[in-house]
Amino acid sequence: MRDAFHEDLDKISDDLVEMTRLVGIAMTRATDALLQADLSLAESVIAADDDIDQLRRQVDDHAIDLLARQQPVATDLRMVVTAMHMASDIERMGDLARHIAKVARMRYPEHGVPDELREVITDMEKTAAHLAAKTGEAIAHKDALAAVEIEKDDDALDQLHRKVFATLVDHSWAHGTEAAVDATLISRYYERFGDHAVAVAARIVYLVTGRYADQQS
Amino acid sequence: MRDAFHEDLDKISDDLVEMTRLVGIAMTRATDALLQADLSLAESVIAADDDIDQLRRQVDDHAIDLLARQQPVATDLRMVVTAMHMASDIERMGDLARHIAKVARMRYPEHGVPDELREVITDMEKTAAHLAAKTGEAIAHKDALAAVEIEKDDDALDQLHRKVFATLVDHSWAHGTEAAVDATLISRYYERFGDHAVAVAARIVYLVTGRYADQQS
Repeated sequence: MRDAFHEDLDKISDDLVEMTRLVGIAMTRATDALLQADLSLAESVIAADDDIDQLRRQVDDHAIDLLARQQPVATDLRMVVTAMHMASDIERMGDLARHIAKVARMRYPEHGVPDELREVITDMEKTAAHLAAKTGEAIAHKDALAAVEIEKDDDALDQLHRKVFATLVDHSWAHGTEAAVDATLISRYYERFGDHAVAVAARIVYLVTGRYADQQS
Repeated sequence: MRDAFHEDLDKISDDLVEMTRLVGIAMTRATDALLQADLSLAESVIAADDDIDQLRRQVDDHAIDLLARQQPVATDLRMVVTAMHMASDIERMGDLARHIAKVARMRYPEHGVPDELREVITDMEKTAAHLAAKTGEAIAHKDALAAVEIEKDDDALDQLHRKVFATLVDHSWAHGTEAAVDATLISRYYERFGDHAVAVAARIVYLVTGRYADQQS
């Protein structure tokens, strides 16, 4: 049987995992809204971001409460602090999904991206959703090895990001600057989503191994 | 005379103020590098970002040490946790300055932005540097009212961001998609720099008033 501290910490960890689940769903639905020009779906993603923000506050409040009541030290203390940092990164992943939904809403009834970008954006969504799921698993199982896979997925996302840019600067691009500006930002949102997953993974590595994984973004 | 806890907290606060000073300098120098196509200046901004990252780790380590040794509760505890969150936001401001320096480096010996964007980018830099300075003052003086001014400056930055986009989508834009992609990202970096300053300001408001200032980004 676990002690009170670890039971509380498990609850915080459950909230973090739930956050990763919600941001993964948000990214998938935001992408659908963008590719199908689905206004009500876009609105629902934007509205649902409040739940993610709320969960983040819950994690912060629980963590602070835990620090005050149990006054953990050493590794226990680091775990609580790290949970708050993770919550911050995952909340931001939700913001990025919301940004994509907002582009879908802004461009409605037009489609948010031209046809020739649909495939790469679909791939970005798949990779991002996969990253969110893996991040949740890594948190649930305190799995430092999963961090390696998360980095690899993020590399794939970065490559797709570069593919978008290559399409935009190609001479055959015929959709004008406005569509290029939108696509630049959309692609950047997916890329940042991946960066935050990597940041969370680096924190898991730190918790498990006691060493910082150097990460740049 | 202050007690040991508040002396330690003052040291953390000093580090945060120093971080705002460094990110303000980084933004000014990154912009100079961009507008003057100054490669060595760009390189120095990129290298100097390590100092900001280092300070952020120092804040985190101090804060965790303080939590372990002094086991603060209530407002004192919230102040320490908030300091860590602020460090995270300010470090990110440094990353955004580094991103701008990287565009300068990537485009060298070309200029990173076309002539018609120089004025608005110069204005963005001034506003961003001002924001960083005000954020430092607000931290130093625990000044919740400064947060209102920081929001106003950030609104100005958002307006400049829209001005960049208006220039890009104007029919007279003659620099092609690649320059538009660069300008979109550059402008986004300044805008995000402002968002993080607002996030820090919101935390100061929370510390002083006990209430969350609603902030979206």
